[in-house]
Amino acid sequence: MQLYYRSLEKMAHQGSIIDQDWNRFVEQTRVRHVQQGTYLIETGEPVKHAYFCSKGLFRLFYTLADGREYNVGFSPEDDYVTSYGAMVQGKPSTFTIEAMEDSVVIEIPHHVLKELMDTSHMWERFVRKSVERLYIRKEERERELLYLSARERYDAFLLKYPGLDKRVAQYHIASYIGVSPVSLSRLLRSDPH
Amino acid sequence: MQLYYRSLEKMAHQGSIIDQDWNRFVEQTRVRHVQQGTYLIETGEPVKHAYFCSKGLFRLFYTLADGREYNVGFSPEDDYVTSYGAMVQGKPSTFTIEAMEDSVVIEIPHHVLKELMDTSHMWERFVRKSVERLYIRKEERERELLYLSARERYDAFLLKYPGLDKRVAQYHIASYIGVSPVSLSRLLRSDPH
Repeated sequence: MQLYYRSLEKMAHQGSIIDQDWNRFVEQTRVRHVQQGTYLIETGEPVKHAYFCSKGLFRLFYTLADGREYNVGFSPEDDYVTSYGAMVQGKPSTFTIEAMEDSVVIEIPHHVLKELMDTSHMWERFVRKSVERLYIRKEERERELLYLSARERYDAFLLKYPGLDKRVAQYHIASYIGVSPVSLSRLLRSDPH
Repeated sequence: MQLYYRSLEKMAHQGSIIDQDWNRFVEQTRVRHVQQGTYLIETGEPVKHAYFCSKGLFRLFYTLADGREYNVGFSPEDDYVTSYGAMVQGKPSTFTIEAMEDSVVIEIPHHVLKELMDTSHMWERFVRKSVERLYIRKEERERELLYLSARERYDAFLLKYPGLDKRVAQYHIASYIGVSPVSLSRLLRSDPH
């Protein structure tokens, strides 16, 4: 079990969270194994937990009116997996999170996170910095969709998610960069780098 | 001067920031008058300050390769005006912020914000909640662009920014909702509500 907490523990330690406050976190959270294909959070559901991915890979996607799925992000190991806006607003999730591989997450109840922030300045800071990271990603993605060509968006994907092109089916990458699978395949054939 | 701090003071008070910590904030920040048409932050510039709009109105926009401007948001009174991602990462701003009316802001040096967060848990919380607000807006906008028709995006604009349709030229609203000025004008004629 301890194995799955290791990365997060290192991050908490770098964030000056003292042992006592870290132990309270470990006591009140749990390790959860999530099989490939399982929905961790589903569109329309209330969101009671935040997650940290210790192993495996998730995708976050919207389902459009015509049934198509639109990937807005991926969460590999050592990354957060969360419908954060819905959780803090007490609203249903507007997107779905699916395990793309057999995965392991740390499950963090929202009330536990709030209690840790109430009693520990350093936990408050840790969450503040984590939200900043989520925000900066959204800013980056907004800019990428505005400025970059499909090829450049593919390269930005490779840079942001090293190695994921080997773990994710090409049609899922196409959905993330906003082109059809056929267009992406043509693009990569014509300019393989 | 005190007048321009009033809204932010109320928010800080609601955030349980004690008088002493609020006074430190007032002492280390300043009121700045910004004339209509002035750029508060320019694309490519380093970002050393966050701002709070006490009076007036700003727009945040990207300049596309063909010279067109793309509005990503507005900041009316009692709202933050900031290139937050650039500031915390120490990077140049990727967008420009322009005063659309004669405006007044509270200018907050980044190092002051950091020092307040270092010494006050409640300031840390205040900033955490402010970043959450920025993040939630980006999530909302992403969803609006994916799901809503041009007309629905216009209605969402009215809802998010009450009264701004009277203060902002229609071509700026068109740029925000992602249609041409001609399309928006046609849309509003055909379905004025």
